[in-house]
Amino acid sequence: MLEKLVLTGAAGNLGGHLRAPLSRLCRELVSSDIAEGVGDLAPNETYVKADLGDPGAMLSLLEGAEMVVHFGAIADEAPWEAIHRSNLLGAFNVWEAAYRNGLRRVVYASSIHAVGMVPKTEAITVDTPHRPDTFYGLAKCFAEDLGRLYWEKRRLESVHMRILSCTPKPNNARAIGSWLSYDDLTRLVTRAIDTPVTGFSVIYGVSDNDRSPVDNSGASHLGYRPRDNAEKWAREIYAASPPLDPTDDANLRHGGPFATTPLGEGAEALLNPKG
Amino acid sequence: MLEKLVLTGAAGNLGGHLRAPLSRLCRELVSSDIAEGVGDLAPNETYVKADLGDPGAMLSLLEGAEMVVHFGAIADEAPWEAIHRSNLLGAFNVWEAAYRNGLRRVVYASSIHAVGMVPKTEAITVDTPHRPDTFYGLAKCFAEDLGRLYWEKRRLESVHMRILSCTPKPNNARAIGSWLSYDDLTRLVTRAIDTPVTGFSVIYGVSDNDRSPVDNSGASHLGYRPRDNAEKWAREIYAASPPLDPTDDANLRHGGPFATTPLGEGAEALLNPKG
Amino acid sequence: MLEKLVLTGAAGNLGGHLRAPLSRLCRELVSSDIAEGVGDLAPNETYVKADLGDPGAMLSLLEGAEMVVHFGAIADEAPWEAIHRSNLLGAFNVWEAAYRNGLRRVVYASSIHAVGMVPKTEAITVDTPHRPDTFYGLAKCFAEDLGRLYWEKRRLESVHMRILSCTPKPNNARAIGSWLSYDDLTRLVTRAIDTPVTGFSVIYGVSDNDRSPVDNSGASHLGYRPRDNAEKWAREIYAASPPLDPTDDANLRHGGPFATTPLGEGAEALLNPKG
Amino acid sequence: MLEKLVLTGAAGNLGGHLRAPLSRLCRELVSSDIAEGVGDLAPNETYVKADLGDPGAMLSLLEGAEMVVHFGAIADEAPWEAIHRSNLLGAFNVWEAAYRNGLRRVVYASSIHAVGMVPKTEAITVDTPHRPDTFYGLAKCFAEDLGRLYWEKRRLESVHMRILSCTPKPNNARAIGSWLSYDDLTRLVTRAIDTPVTGFSVIYGVSDNDRSPVDNSGASHLGYRPRDNAEKWAREIYAASPPLDPTDDANLRHGGPFATTPLGEGAEALLNPKG
Amino acid sequence: MLEKLVLTGAAGNLGGHLRAPLSRLCRELVSSDIAEGVGDLAPNETYVKADLGDPGAMLSLLEGAEMVVHFGAIADEAPWEAIHRSNLLGAFNVWEAAYRNGLRRVVYASSIHAVGMVPKTEAITVDTPHRPDTFYGLAKCFAEDLGRLYWEKRRLESVHMRILSCTPKPNNARAIGSWLSYDDLTRLVTRAIDTPVTGFSVIYGVSDNDRSPVDNSGASHLGYRPRDNAEKWAREIYAASPPLDPTDDANLRHGGPFATTPLGEGAEALLNPKG
Amino acid sequence: MLEKLVLTGAAGNLGGHLRAPLSRLCRELVSSDIAEGVGDLAPNETYVKADLGDPGAMLSLLEGAEMVVHFGAIADEAPWEAIHRSNLLGAFNVWEAAYRNGLRRVVYASSIHAVGMVPKTEAITVDTPHRPDTFYGLAKCFAEDLGRLYWEKRRLESVHMRILSCTPKPNNARAIGSWLSYDDLTRLVTRAIDTPVTGFSVIYGVSDNDRSPVDNSGASHLGYRPRDNAEKWAREIYAASPPLDPTDDANLRHGGPFATTPLGEGAEALLNPKG
Repeated sequence: MLEKLVLTGAAGNLGGHLRAPLSRLCRELVSSDIAEGVGDLAPNETYVKADLGDPGAMLSLLEGAEMVVHFGAIADEAPWEAIHRSNLLGAFNVWEAAYRNGLRRVVYASSIHAVGMVPKTEAITVDTPHRPDTFYGLAKCFAEDLGRLYWEKRRLESVHMRILSCTPKPNNARAIGSWLSYDDLTRLVTRAIDTPVTGFSVIYGVSDNDRSPVDNSGASHLGYRPRDNAEKWAREIYAASPPLDPTDDANLRHGGPFATTPLGEGAEALLNPKG
Repeated sequence: MLEKLVLTGAAGNLGGHLRAPLSRLCRELVSSDIAEGVGDLAPNETYVKADLGDPGAMLSLLEGAEMVVHFGAIADEAPWEAIHRSNLLGAFNVWEAAYRNGLRRVVYASSIHAVGMVPKTEAITVDTPHRPDTFYGLAKCFAEDLGRLYWEKRRLESVHMRILSCTPKPNNARAIGSWLSYDDLTRLVTRAIDTPVTGFSVIYGVSDNDRSPVDNSGASHLGYRPRDNAEKWAREIYAASPPLDPTDDANLRHGGPFATTPLGEGAEALLNPKG
Repeated sequence: MLEKLVLTGAAGNLGGHLRAPLSRLCRELVSSDIAEGVGDLAPNETYVKADLGDPGAMLSLLEGAEMVVHFGAIADEAPWEAIHRSNLLGAFNVWEAAYRNGLRRVVYASSIHAVGMVPKTEAITVDTPHRPDTFYGLAKCFAEDLGRLYWEKRRLESVHMRILSCTPKPNNARAIGSWLSYDDLTRLVTRAIDTPVTGFSVIYGVSDNDRSPVDNSGASHLGYRPRDNAEKWAREIYAASPPLDPTDDANLRHGGPFATTPLGEGAEALLNPKG
Repeated sequence: MLEKLVLTGAAGNLGGHLRAPLSRLCRELVSSDIAEGVGDLAPNETYVKADLGDPGAMLSLLEGAEMVVHFGAIADEAPWEAIHRSNLLGAFNVWEAAYRNGLRRVVYASSIHAVGMVPKTEAITVDTPHRPDTFYGLAKCFAEDLGRLYWEKRRLESVHMRILSCTPKPNNARAIGSWLSYDDLTRLVTRAIDTPVTGFSVIYGVSDNDRSPVDNSGASHLGYRPRDNAEKWAREIYAASPPLDPTDDANLRHGGPFATTPLGEGAEALLNPKG
Repeated sequence: MLEKLVLTGAAGNLGGHLRAPLSRLCRELVSSDIAEGVGDLAPNETYVKADLGDPGAMLSLLEGAEMVVHFGAIADEAPWEAIHRSNLLGAFNVWEAAYRNGLRRVVYASSIHAVGMVPKTEAITVDTPHRPDTFYGLAKCFAEDLGRLYWEKRRLESVHMRILSCTPKPNNARAIGSWLSYDDLTRLVTRAIDTPVTGFSVIYGVSDNDRSPVDNSGASHLGYRPRDNAEKWAREIYAASPPLDPTDDANLRHGGPFATTPLGEGAEALLNPKG
Repeated sequence: MLEKLVLTGAAGNLGGHLRAPLSRLCRELVSSDIAEGVGDLAPNETYVKADLGDPGAMLSLLEGAEMVVHFGAIADEAPWEAIHRSNLLGAFNVWEAAYRNGLRRVVYASSIHAVGMVPKTEAITVDTPHRPDTFYGLAKCFAEDLGRLYWEKRRLESVHMRILSCTPKPNNARAIGSWLSYDDLTRLVTRAIDTPVTGFSVIYGVSDNDRSPVDNSGASHLGYRPRDNAEKWAREIYAASPPLDPTDDANLRHGGPFATTPLGEGAEALLNPKG
């Protein structure tokens, strides 16, 4: 049981889902986002409006906390200036504030898009080197290197969860393999928090899908055991999908549609914004 | 649901078993073999007698199909001339006919004997390089390279299932690790067909045996999850077996008896013809 | 069913637990230790007091046996002279006696401490090279090289079980990942005995803990499938533990407290003597 | 012979050295830096004062060029804000301007400090994953991921030269292994320019020192063959050095003093500013 | 000094060059090809016209020999039927005849095209798995698997020389990296013959070019040390070449133009028939 | 220039050769062996008769020294009791005495026989795991693990030189690849001493033979550059050798004749006692 835990991105889809379970892991939960509010709060929860791009705001936000669950970011490919400010500098500001406030660990929403250009027919593991598919993925790569640096030089721990497709239910053919259920997201974040020592760790965030395209065996020390499985939607979704062109990188690469979207072009270009 | 699917080797043990389940995955199933017939047909099934060694026959056979499940081959070590014609040229004829007819994918019965000389004490993965144990295995290696070439140059997909020991039940000590049940074979072939994009993929065909000697983690994108387990026969079969000499390559290598049989000598030399 | 099986270390915690299950795998079990006796014997069990450091005693002990389960050793870090005699020379004496008596296999209690200096954030597999953390671990490394030599030059098989934390129940935060239950120990030793051919094999001895920090996929041919899971004690044990310092090698390395204990200093320095 | 080539960082030590040799590889050389000027110009050289942190300035600077040799950056550890602007955003601005202007390739001064936390006793290759030792190194990691992204999504080539210690002569014990002579720097940059196709490539910049601690075999396609060797200074420099403490990360890690310098603290803390 | 050595492909460019040096390594050289003759013979040389596709002819040809240097093949991409007969069956016939006649070793002209689809920016080693670029390359892959099989089952040695571009002098930009001089070819073949034990070995055949794109460190036991270097032609050839498009697989992949030529289309489509 | 350096095995072939060059690297050289003396001493050299198996003798011997060059051992396969005392316990006594006396580094004569069972057709690197071929090799493996342990727990450095065949000139066919000249031995030991930081390092001791079967690229930080080459004896030695049987492990494995000699049988069984 942590004394104080901070959640960024609390107004987002994933952050919003995490508020309740995180509130049960600590005596005091501070939820934060750029929005005015996030609706009703849990009894031990407070909300702080703060801008990730503002170092001073982050420094204040993390004061006295033991860990930060950092989900605040643009959740899609976007122009460089936006990604740079929210995702890249946002990550830097969180890590630096965590260090200055003496936090123990950053639990970070990284993404499959850090390695999105790898073909699906190649196994990816927690050691797969960076092959970002977008500015979005590039910022995730930066945060992984940043986390490693702060661990090796400053002994600030971090867990980098390379999340695949986190939605209420799988909504396209790719997600039969890449889906992460909300319950499994909770399980993953819980383990990233309650594992006593993590150092610098990378792990994929995906459910126990039959067709999950990743190998998490290198992160078994984190004890993440997903329980949901997109396979029960497979027949229905595949029946509704046209055949996928195997020569299209959007189908062939781990990053899916991000592998072919032009750099910097986001939500309008993509039907499935969480990729 | 495919429009048209072709099965070769439909008169063989494994092909014969696959006819019924495959007929449920397509509107039209064309079963083929060198035999005169294969008995009663499913309502949507037709039978075509065709010789794998005849390029023109293969070209006709695959006309209009979307995929071919290629199980036609001599299922044992045999003299080179026979392996060459049925297994090596047969594979070539199928791939070339698939390409010319615009098929999307070849689902191929490869074999553990493509890597049969690897010691069992070394983990084998989907990336283990070729170490064939027989002419039979050599032809499987050829078909894997062929499949990779057609994928890389012509964008014809293929799934190479390196099958271990597919029999109704395990029938010797080696099979406690290497058994593939008929039901799991069906599961494997089904996934090789219904996975939307496979590119060039290799996967081992083995049940969920406690002592399965392979690591399929590099093929998780195919979603193959076996359910049967040879372990329930272990006590009985081990009790009936004499101790196995660990210095005998037939016991020590993944290829089992194929690892020691003289090249080109088949059924008469081996008690267990499926190896 | 073996004719004759020998167990060393029968008076120790783990050896003592194994006596009953081993007695059911053979017609004749010979239990041995340096103690005067081990209490009541099974009907097919005899006890022989013998000193591991005495080559002649080992030669007599193994006469007529088919396998030896070698658990006899100091089960803790200790001064070099003690480790050298009991653990290093003891292993040599057992292997040499096994060879001279024509045994088929040595089943050996190796230890995680053979690779204890590897950080927990690095995956360890059955191929991870030696990085011992103590004299205790150094002697385990020696026995692995010895076992490989006897297999390659003399065709004596051996299974090296790198045991993590084998206790009745998990008793500290590290053990949530590293626990090996007594029942799973029995399963592991049973498979090490009844697998028909093992050559030289290495495998980790750990239960099916959610947070098990090892990857046994390279030893799947041994068919070890643990069933217990330390996770059910996680909440209770973590609640009772102070936060672990991630910069302390005792928390960061696979060897746990052995990673920081001074060489040669044993039981008095360590609360958890099985590490 | 290129039509137009741009050099950034032309007022720096390394950039200044490169002006003359680069002027011989192109019809028109544009040298650029933040300084007012760089002294006498070659007949085919022009100088443009430009700020790396200004996207528009970079866009203008690269207009009409075929390649850019990007050496402009703070050449030392420095506070984050400075590194972020000059080294990280500077790299982004150069790559984006190169893409918009249709350049073919960026030749980039990366650094050993992208992997500076790797122990010297571990071989490093062009595939060694990022382990930055400073903010300086972190920005180099960012530029490598950026270069890979622009190659994979936009087909802009780049060569990332991980330079070790480029000085007129070796000036400390570490440099006996890590020295890059000015002549070898010229050879390296020349090959990075004249190799017809490079895609995304990484290579270490080090002379042919007997004790060079890197393995460039993965970059042999670039044809870099250094000719100088720091060994001739070894006796003299070692004689003048006190014994190095092998437990000090500044001596044990590839990054040398950067491995222990506090993040963000630069020139005053380090005797050897190029690391 | 061998008693009897056989050379196939003696009328080809490379085979013709090898006749003289091979005649000095044996008491009796038998040169063979499909042509009527090969001009003047060395005193210890005889010529035998023989068809590689004729098993009986090969059996006779190799009678009494100790080794065969097998260069006979179509030296270009060609229709499958032609490659199959001359290159694939030709290799089989040579290996089988070598085995039946008790030869010790086959020295074989394999090719870079066995791995021609690998991008040049990836290091290739003697362990790089097959990625053929043509039917021509596919037949080379077959011969490597065949050679491995005959070594492991029949103890017939073979050395597979993956030759890059063997011409009198480099004749295009790719060859600055891939050239193999005739003198270095002689050195390579000589070492493949005079190394006392080779088992099954793979090695790249390339000169000591600065920009040689391969890593032969895994074949150092063969002692091949090339002395020529295409670099002296680099300036002239690069000056005469148009810029190469880095997005064209013919420039990006190890196989060069074979990486894009349609399967089965040979000499007319390629300016540089030896690839 | 070291103040005090100790050499063990000074009466042996290799140790005897090293006395003179080592005397030039230090102010005081203490040579030691079990013999009564080693003949004329250098002006700064003293001789101490001491038994490696005697811990107290080693403790005295190393008093005040900075490094020890440990060549004392039985230089051949021998019965276990002899190898155990001189080679295994001898190494332990030296390391422990070095630690207690505060030495900085042990420079150790390890051997190819630590990995002697690896086939020559497999590349061996400094990371190749242990595969000893004899008791002799087993003791070398032990000393490598010991050295790693003392480095990781006690920060005592060590360099493990896996020497191949060190003789005045190559004297058999194997040595054309495996020869280490006396001059190159001197170069290697000198670098193992004068490299400022080595941590725990492994390197092969072999000359610059064309056919050297090892890859030292992982030890480039030690700067060992051999200059001699056994190739000049190749023609003569090969001409005098009968053909080597490639199926004989003595020819096929890196350990040469040690790969087939019965364990414990030494000089009488082997014509070439240094292997």
